[in-house]
Amino acid sequence: MMQVDVENVNTGEKATGKQIVGIVGLGLIGGSLGLDLRHRGWHVLGVSRSPLTCDLALERGAVDQSSDQLSLLREAGVIFICTPMAAITTTVRGLLPYITPKTILTDVGSVKEHILREVLPLWANFVGGHPMAGTTENGIMAAQEGLFINAPYILTPVENTPIAAVEVVANLVRSLGVRLYFTTPQEHDRAVSLISHLPVMISASLISTCSQEPHKSILSLAQNLASSGFRDTSRVGGGNPELGLMMAQYNRKALLDSLHKYQQNLQQVVTFLEMENWQDLQAILEKTQANRANFLT
Amino acid sequence: MMQVDVENVNTGEKATGKQIVGIVGLGLIGGSLGLDLRHRGWHVLGVSRSPLTCDLALERGAVDQSSDQLSLLREAGVIFICTPMAAITTTVRGLLPYITPKTILTDVGSVKEHILREVLPLWANFVGGHPMAGTTENGIMAAQEGLFINAPYILTPVENTPIAAVEVVANLVRSLGVRLYFTTPQEHDRAVSLISHLPVMISASLISTCSQEPHKSILSLAQNLASSGFRDTSRVGGGNPELGLMMAQYNRKALLDSLHKYQQNLQQVVTFLEMENWQDLQAILEKTQANRANFLT
Repeated sequence: MMQVDVENVNTGEKATGKQIVGIVGLGLIGGSLGLDLRHRGWHVLGVSRSPLTCDLALERGAVDQSSDQLSLLREAGVIFICTPMAAITTTVRGLLPYITPKTILTDVGSVKEHILREVLPLWANFVGGHPMAGTTENGIMAAQEGLFINAPYILTPVENTPIAAVEVVANLVRSLGVRLYFTTPQEHDRAVSLISHLPVMISASLISTCSQEPHKSILSLAQNLASSGFRDTSRVGGGNPELGLMMAQYNRKALLDSLHKYQQNLQQVVTFLEMENWQDLQAILEKTQANRANFLT
Repeated sequence: MMQVDVENVNTGEKATGKQIVGIVGLGLIGGSLGLDLRHRGWHVLGVSRSPLTCDLALERGAVDQSSDQLSLLREAGVIFICTPMAAITTTVRGLLPYITPKTILTDVGSVKEHILREVLPLWANFVGGHPMAGTTENGIMAAQEGLFINAPYILTPVENTPIAAVEVVANLVRSLGVRLYFTTPQEHDRAVSLISHLPVMISASLISTCSQEPHKSILSLAQNLASSGFRDTSRVGGGNPELGLMMAQYNRKALLDSLHKYQQNLQQVVTFLEMENWQDLQAILEKTQANRANFLT
């Protein structure tokens, strides 16, 4: 069934001549990928455990065909695994009966080393990926065309990853308009521990601290006075608990390292305050004002 | 020169019949106050050290008359001190030759106990105030009408503050459309240390930690990947260093207390991560998700 020619060595092609891509997990990311890829001429096969999601994905135009069975993906040359991180390895195992050695698998999990350690022994033709795009909403109904435009998309090939597979996935996601980066799984995990996972933990601890104020009148006043400063600083700490927990579980080592360094920096601020060392505290605040801009280019 | 009648016992009244209010410090807050108060029929006298600011305030319609000399305010019944916190006490001292015992002074400093401890021995007819309004811009050119609508405005009278003075200031700021709260200077400072000053320090420490990443490739990746999560959590830590320093200096005790409690909460998160105690970590994240809403009503 899978037609292979020289041009499309690693991608399925339908009788119609269209190349075939598979997507497992039809939520915000999987659904948005489907919308964009269909728009770019791909034949999209989508799998979700939920029959309702399968129907909605069809209705929304995110897939050409959908099913709750992985066997639907036999013909796909490239398969995006867009499930929650905890289900990625199981999904790869479930796909094994239906794929050929040339089938390229890629995922969208937000931690890479842990996933690759589990998946690569099962399937070498696997390219770790991480699109950094999202909205406040989740699920197939939140899927939208153009979600990935200008969003960072990181690929983390390892020494044994076939170059051809990397090229196929790279070209595919590049066509979505992303800013593409290549790095190692380790460097990826370290970078996201700093700018994505650490903020969740320090933001959550702010909410904990404010909520624990023992004097009712002060707590009530704090709740009434909280405005944009508290709102912004507490946003990610008030987000989806499952997502925060997953970051902690899958990126534990890098996150702990970032947290320990953070604790040292915070202790420095506390010490300067205790010693009334205003000059050095001011120097810190001047540096942070200047350095923040480097992360927001 | 100051005409007093029964109705306006504590406010100056001009020959025209208009009540006279004085403003020292014609920046964002002082200028916006002037715009609103003139709009509500007050005759506004404004003082700034900078002759240019005096001219701009006149041009913008934030004052009826302006001067770089405090003597301009002889006729004002109420005077808002809108200088940076470090200049409040000096301003009160500078006003002493020109005011009568009935003149009501009030300030807009973001810390109250420290200021009142310095000012009350100089002038008992003083009502501590703190409007929680702002924009990202500062200065007279950023002043705008309606800045205080729905913004919290806290007054912190103490045992000896004349009730008449509190009433005059309360009615005046209420007319701006604020949400008015009364509390003690201590409770005010404790509440703002939690929801306003603590966020600055934890946010600054995030920027410090990310900026100190020793591996250039990871630092560069982190800078490229940083998106809304980092942007929001780092915003107040990348703000005006002088403002952050002032919070630390003037609210040192309450801020240190909040920081110590914060460090305990953060250590709890670190310990759960170290022990791989996912159940208790999840419980924290579920609580913070639920509790955040209480601060954003």
